[in-house]
Amino acid sequence: MSGPPQAVARARRAVRATLETVAAEHPGALVLVACSGGADSLALAATTAFEAPRLGLRAGAVVVDHQVQTGSAEVAAEAAGRCRDLGLGPVVVRTVDVPTGPGSGGPEAAARHARYAALEAAADAEGAEVVLLGHTADDQAETVLLGLARGSGARSLAGMRDAVGRWRRPLLGLRRTETEAVCAAQGLGWWVDPTNAGTSPGAPLRSRVRASVLPVLDDVLGPGVVEALARTADQLDEDDTALGTLAADLLESARRAAGPADGDGRAVRLDVAAVEQAVPAVRRRCLRLAALAAGCPAGALTREHVLGVDGLLTRWRGQGPLHLPGGVEARRVCGRLVLEHPHH
Amino acid sequence: MSGPPQAVARARRAVRATLETVAAEHPGALVLVACSGGADSLALAATTAFEAPRLGLRAGAVVVDHQVQTGSAEVAAEAAGRCRDLGLGPVVVRTVDVPTGPGSGGPEAAARHARYAALEAAADAEGAEVVLLGHTADDQAETVLLGLARGSGARSLAGMRDAVGRWRRPLLGLRRTETEAVCAAQGLGWWVDPTNAGTSPGAPLRSRVRASVLPVLDDVLGPGVVEALARTADQLDEDDTALGTLAADLLESARRAAGPADGDGRAVRLDVAAVEQAVPAVRRRCLRLAALAAGCPAGALTREHVLGVDGLLTRWRGQGPLHLPGGVEARRVCGRLVLEHPHH
Repeated sequence: MSGPPQAVARARRAVRATLETVAAEHPGALVLVACSGGADSLALAATTAFEAPRLGLRAGAVVVDHQVQTGSAEVAAEAAGRCRDLGLGPVVVRTVDVPTGPGSGGPEAAARHARYAALEAAADAEGAEVVLLGHTADDQAETVLLGLARGSGARSLAGMRDAVGRWRRPLLGLRRTETEAVCAAQGLGWWVDPTNAGTSPGAPLRSRVRASVLPVLDDVLGPGVVEALARTADQLDEDDTALGTLAADLLESARRAAGPADGDGRAVRLDVAAVEQAVPAVRRRCLRLAALAAGCPAGALTREHVLGVDGLLTRWRGQGPLHLPGGVEARRVCGRLVLEHPHH
Repeated sequence: MSGPPQAVARARRAVRATLETVAAEHPGALVLVACSGGADSLALAATTAFEAPRLGLRAGAVVVDHQVQTGSAEVAAEAAGRCRDLGLGPVVVRTVDVPTGPGSGGPEAAARHARYAALEAAADAEGAEVVLLGHTADDQAETVLLGLARGSGARSLAGMRDAVGRWRRPLLGLRRTETEAVCAAQGLGWWVDPTNAGTSPGAPLRSRVRASVLPVLDDVLGPGVVEALARTADQLDEDDTALGTLAADLLESARRAAGPADGDGRAVRLDVAAVEQAVPAVRRRCLRLAALAAGCPAGALTREHVLGVDGLLTRWRGQGPLHLPGGVEARRVCGRLVLEHPHH
């Protein structure tokens, strides 16, 4: 008598660990698997269908039809059918309109936003406690590499979390090849999204990282690089959380120490003495939070901007106001750092 | 009238900023440029020869002959000659024997150790305050990528510091192509180390990262990726420094709270209550420091080991002792975490 193949066993252990936590807090709850029909989410669906009943949980699935490729309705219906065959229920298909054009943040971001909104709505409608997502260690490694390209430190490298809000990602420790093995072992065919295979310059950035960057890293740095990137993401997430909390505390105490605003209550005012004694990692995060609170758009606020504001504290020689994105001005007045929109 | 080319101007600004700090603390001091004859260090030598006298500093050079390639003595003599032509003095050549075989940590590490020891000795002999190293943003990016492959978090990604001990790296903000432009603009030919150009599997790992990984990242993630990696290194260094300090403080107070050792004074004993309330990033760094203090070899102590020890705090259900590298055992006894070598 042999047990299930190794990949199936690993997937079951991972899903069980997630579902045990859910069952402990919400006995008998409904969990929904977000399923695209690809190997990752189909392996998750099959494994959840096996594990959930053993923990007294109900398991359904939600399939999102993005309607951006021809035949997407058929792919969605096919995925939903497989989920039903696996014994999942309820299985719902949600159709979304992905906005295009200016302001949508690019097709990849627009599709992601639309997908998460649809999953959220399905979970609400079905009364699901959590939604299970099929992201793997390969997705995590790609996220880290995309974060490297932004160069905004631990925040952009920290990757995806295994549990945040109602989202759960039980497969973050598994390789994509393992999810394929899980499907193959159970005779489940899966769908390959053609946009994920693109190596052309027009393909989405994440797909090009997957097709071109990871294989080279694997080849040069060794086959453990995906796991190493995933481990890195975990640790940087811990670091960023810890320092972010310290920075938020510092911001609060520095605002309190600055006293009440004399005029416009919308300005962010910090006591210089309170902030300047903090270590750089906390101080600069605090200044970033202050700039965001004053109205700087997060996407436009760079490390250089924050270092500029930091210079008003640590290299003070009477310099004039500093202009930040979103029309925010930072200046130092009488022992206080003031960040505000001068025209508000 | 046109000024110097942009790369020359950028290099001069960078070197001047470093030398101003040296001159402020040590007026009239001697600085030594570590020069291999390659573009990076030759550009640094030329720029230092220009800037140092303007700040009242003396500037010399030290060339290390590693004796691992045929003709290395000629390359070293050639580099020394160029430094003298640039007006640097004293210019010394140091010959080192790079150990090979077991225990040397591989040829790259052995050469690096021998090089730094020789530079240190030359600085001592000549009475130099600081040694200037020619590392560029490209070197920093390679260091970050090599750290990714280790997957040990911010510590391994933090890269090289611009100022640590007597070492100064003024060119960390410049690209390698800029140092080549600096040499070319001043009619200085440079030496290309053949081992740095290797794309074969037998070439040093750093050279393969340089030849194979960075160009692909550049191509897929965009031409700003080297600067982004360097920025990332800076921020992660800040983070790791801040969290490392908090962890060391926590270790000290948790050891104090655990009270004096009853028996073997070499065991590391921590008060569980003192450690377990800390955030994961600080708590796990503290446990790592405790394991190192108990005798675990740094290179063998992985994230998994540290998470195992962490489990004795956060998932305590009476489990037995944990075996760590170097023969160290971790166990929880009467509200204390004890890490020790049982046979010492």
